[in-house]
Amino acid sequence: MPAQSAAYVELCGLLREAAHLASAAALLGWDQETYMPASGGAGRAEQSSLLAAIVHERRTSPRVGELIAACEADDALMKPGSETAADVREMRHDYDKVTKIPSELVAEIAKVSSQSQEVWKKAREKDDFAMFAPWLERMFALSRRKAECYGVKGELYDALLDEYEPGATSAMIEATFTPLRARLSELLGRVADDGKAPSEKPLKVKVDASRQHAFGQFILEKCGFDLAAGRLDVTTHPFCSGIGPGDTRLTTRYRDERFTDALYGTMHEMGHGLYEQGLPKAERFGQPLAGDISLGIHESQSRMWENFVGRSKAFWKWAMPHARKHLGKELGKFDAKEMFMAVNTAKPSLIRVEADEATYNLHVMVRFEIERALLNGTMKVKDVPAEWNRRYKEYLGVKVPDDRRGCLQDVHWSFGLVGYFPTYTLGNLYAAQFWEKINADIPDLQKQIAKGKFDQLKKWLNTKIHRHGRRYRAAELCRMVTGADLSADPLMRHLESRAQAVYGL
Amino acid sequence: MPAQSAAYVELCGLLREAAHLASAAALLGWDQETYMPASGGAGRAEQSSLLAAIVHERRTSPRVGELIAACEADDALMKPGSETAADVREMRHDYDKVTKIPSELVAEIAKVSSQSQEVWKKAREKDDFAMFAPWLERMFALSRRKAECYGVKGELYDALLDEYEPGATSAMIEATFTPLRARLSELLGRVADDGKAPSEKPLKVKVDASRQHAFGQFILEKCGFDLAAGRLDVTTHPFCSGIGPGDTRLTTRYRDERFTDALYGTMHEMGHGLYEQGLPKAERFGQPLAGDISLGIHESQSRMWENFVGRSKAFWKWAMPHARKHLGKELGKFDAKEMFMAVNTAKPSLIRVEADEATYNLHVMVRFEIERALLNGTMKVKDVPAEWNRRYKEYLGVKVPDDRRGCLQDVHWSFGLVGYFPTYTLGNLYAAQFWEKINADIPDLQKQIAKGKFDQLKKWLNTKIHRHGRRYRAAELCRMVTGADLSADPLMRHLESRAQAVYGL
Repeated sequence: MPAQSAAYVELCGLLREAAHLASAAALLGWDQETYMPASGGAGRAEQSSLLAAIVHERRTSPRVGELIAACEADDALMKPGSETAADVREMRHDYDKVTKIPSELVAEIAKVSSQSQEVWKKAREKDDFAMFAPWLERMFALSRRKAECYGVKGELYDALLDEYEPGATSAMIEATFTPLRARLSELLGRVADDGKAPSEKPLKVKVDASRQHAFGQFILEKCGFDLAAGRLDVTTHPFCSGIGPGDTRLTTRYRDERFTDALYGTMHEMGHGLYEQGLPKAERFGQPLAGDISLGIHESQSRMWENFVGRSKAFWKWAMPHARKHLGKELGKFDAKEMFMAVNTAKPSLIRVEADEATYNLHVMVRFEIERALLNGTMKVKDVPAEWNRRYKEYLGVKVPDDRRGCLQDVHWSFGLVGYFPTYTLGNLYAAQFWEKINADIPDLQKQIAKGKFDQLKKWLNTKIHRHGRRYRAAELCRMVTGADLSADPLMRHLESRAQAVYGL
Repeated sequence: MPAQSAAYVELCGLLREAAHLASAAALLGWDQETYMPASGGAGRAEQSSLLAAIVHERRTSPRVGELIAACEADDALMKPGSETAADVREMRHDYDKVTKIPSELVAEIAKVSSQSQEVWKKAREKDDFAMFAPWLERMFALSRRKAECYGVKGELYDALLDEYEPGATSAMIEATFTPLRARLSELLGRVADDGKAPSEKPLKVKVDASRQHAFGQFILEKCGFDLAAGRLDVTTHPFCSGIGPGDTRLTTRYRDERFTDALYGTMHEMGHGLYEQGLPKAERFGQPLAGDISLGIHESQSRMWENFVGRSKAFWKWAMPHARKHLGKELGKFDAKEMFMAVNTAKPSLIRVEADEATYNLHVMVRFEIERALLNGTMKVKDVPAEWNRRYKEYLGVKVPDDRRGCLQDVHWSFGLVGYFPTYTLGNLYAAQFWEKINADIPDLQKQIAKGKFDQLKKWLNTKIHRHGRRYRAAELCRMVTGADLSADPLMRHLESRAQAVYGL
C-alpha cells in the first residue's frame, strides 16, 4: 500500500482538475489543427488563452504550494525510493518551474514570441536574415531572463534544457554529442566514398491519400495502438496529442508521392501515442506519476517505432504483402528487401525535417552548439548565418545556398524554444540503447516482427518504461533499464549495421 | 452611438469571457458526439463538468450582479427602447434565472436526471412504464421545486416554459394550440377520407452515404450557409452547435434508404445554423444582443428551411437536376413534381420524430397537455400511459400498441426538460407567419427559389430576425416583423395549401 495523507489526496485532486482543464485546452488545440472552420480562429484564440490562464492559475495557486510543502514534511510520504516521494519531488519541480517566472515575463514572452513568429515567417519567405535578427536577439534576451529566474547553478543553458529534459545538463549532452559527431561524420564519409546507393524507385510509386490512410490505420492496429482510445487525422504538421485518459490523437499528412513519408510520420506519432496510452492516466491523471519523463524519452518511443521497427528488414518482410494489398499492385514490382534498402538511404541534406536517420543528429548538433553559444553570449546573433553554414560544411559536407534553407528553416527559436533541439538526438540515443536491451530480453524479436507480432515488444515498453510515468528521471531510467549510462555506442552500432546492410560497407 | 458606461463595459467583458468558456464546453460536447474515441468518455465527463462549473461560477458571480444593478440604475443606458436597455434587461433575466436556483438543487437535478435517464433507457427497451414511473415522479417533483424557486406569478408551468421561451405563458400557448388542434384534426380527417395519397417511390431510391454527404454540402453552400465558418459532420442524433464566433457546426446522419431523411435533417440544422451565423457574435459575443431569442424562434428558422423551402415545389424544380447529378441516375426516373409530392405525404403515426409536417404538432400537444397537468398535479404519473394513449386515439386517430412507442418514446422528461415541447410547435407557427410576410415582401421569392437563388431570403432573415439577437422577445418580434400577434392561421393556410397540392383536396 503506498503512503497517503489528507494533504497528498487534496493535492492530487487539485492537480487532476488542472490536468482535466489542460485536456480541454489540448482538445481546442487539436480541433484548431483538424476540423475548426477557418473563421473560428479569432474566437479560438480567446478561448485558448482563457483556458490557459485558468490552468496556470490553478497550477500556481498558493494552496498547491502549501500542500506540496506539507507533503515534503511528511516522512511517510517521502520514504526514499517510494512512488509518493517521486511524485512529490516532481510536483515540487513543476511548481517551482511554473511559479518562478513572474507573470509579467510570461506575458512578455507570449507577446514578443507571437510577433517574432510572424517576422520569422516573412523573413524565411524572403530569405532575409537581417529582418529576423533583432527578433532573434530579443527572444534570446527573454530566454536568458527566464533562465535567470529559474536560478539554476552552473550554465544558464541548463535551466532551459531542464524544461524539456529535466535533470539533463549541457555538459552531459556535449560529452555524448562530441564523440557521436566524429563517428557520424566518419560513417557518412565512408558511405559517400565507398557506399553503393540503393534504388529509391519503390518510394516513387504514387498512392492516393485514402489508401495511405487505410494502410496507416492497419499498421496502427497491428502494432497495438488502441484505436478505441485514440484516432488518426490529417493536419499540415503531424503531431501526437495525449488529450486525456483514454484519448490519444495522432495526425499525419499525405502526398500522392513518397507514401513512406506519411507511413513513417504515422509510425513516429504512433510511438508517442503508445507512450501516452501506456501512462497510468486512468488512476493518476494530473500527477507526475502519470506523466511522461521528458521530451527525450518521448522521442525515444517515436524514433524506435519509426526507425528501429519501421525501417527494419523484419518489418518489411511482414508488411510488404499488406502494403501491396492496401497501396496497390504498383508496389508488386518490388520486394521486401528493395523496400528496406530504399527507406534507408542516407544522404547529407540541408533540411532537418527531411533528414535521414543518420544525418539527422548532425542537424541537431549544429543547432545545439549555436543556441548554447548565443545564450552564453559567446556568439553574436549577426554571426549565426556564417556559423551555421560553416558547421553544415564541416559536419555534413553540404554548402548552404541561402538562409531560407539554412538558419531560418526552423520555427523553434522564433518562439523561444531554446534547449529543445538536443532532445531530438537524445531520443535517438535512448531509442538505440533501449533497443539493444529489448533485443537481448526478447531474443527472437526480429522473428516476431517478421510475423507482424508486436505484443511482446509493446509489453516490454509498457512495463519497463511507460507505466512508471515520471517516477524516474531519464538518466536514472536508462541505467535501471539498460544497466548503463547513456552512450553513443548503441546508436552507432545500429547505424553501422544499417549502413553495412544497405550500402554494402 | 449607443450609450456606454464603465460598468456596462466591464459587464460585457465578463460575460464575453464566460461565453468563450462556454464555447470551449460546447466544443467538448460536439467532439464527444463526433470524433472522441470511445474510451475518452470518463475523462470527458470530468472535463465537461469542471468547465460547466467554471462557466456557472462566472455567470453567477456577485460582481456580475453588482454590475447589472449599476447598469439598471443608469438612465442613459436604460433609455426605453434602446439596445443597451434591452441588453441589460436580458442580462438581468439570465442572472436571476441562474442565481435563483440553489446550487444544492442544481446538483440534485444533475444527479437524479443522470440516473433517471439510465432507467428511462432500460424502461423503454423493456416497454416497462412502471419501472420508470418513480423516476418520472422524482423528476417532476424536482421540476416543481425549480419552478417554485423562480417565483413566477401565475401558473407554475410558466416558470419552466420561460427557460426555453422567455415571456411565453401556458395560457397563451393553450389559446393558440386549441384552435390549431381542432383544425389539424379536421384537415387530417379530410386527407384520410378524400385524399389521394402520392407515391413514395422517389424516397425509396438507395443512395450511399458519401453521395448524400456531397449533396448535403452542395445544398448548404447554395443556401448561403458559410462553410468557412461552419461544418457538417455525422452523429447518431443530428444537431446544430453554435460553438462560438465564426464557428457553427451542423450534424446529420445517413442511411442508404430514404435519403430525404438526411437531406431534411441537414436543411433543418442548416436553418438553426444560419440563425447562429446571422447573430452579431463578432461584436457582442456573450451579450444577450448576440444571443438567440428563444427555442421557438430558433425552431422557426430550422422548420422554415426544412419545410417551407425544402419541401416546396419551387425548391424541387431547382434541386432535382442537382439531386440526380449528386445522388445517381436512379433518381432520373422521377420528376420534380413527383419528388415534391413524395416528400409531403401526411400520415398519422406513433413516433414524434418521424412525423410529417402536419401531424407533428399533434404529437407536441399531447406532451404539452400531459406535462402541464403533471406539474400542476391535476394528473398522476400512473395515469400517463392511459392519458397518452387516449389522446393519440383522439387527436391522431392511432392506437398506441405499447409504451415503448407511446409515452416512453422521448428522452426529455427523463432529464427534467419540462416546458420544452411546446417550443417545437411555436417554431412551426412562427415559421408560417414569417413565411407569409417574407413572400409578401419578396413577391417573386418562389421564382427565385426555383432558380436556386436564396440570397434575398437569407438577407431578409438576417435583417429582420437574426441581427437583433435577443433585443426583442419572441411575441414582440413577431408583431414587429409581421404586424400581428402569433396565430394558427398562417400555419393552417400553409398546410391546407400543401394538402390541396399533394392530396388533391
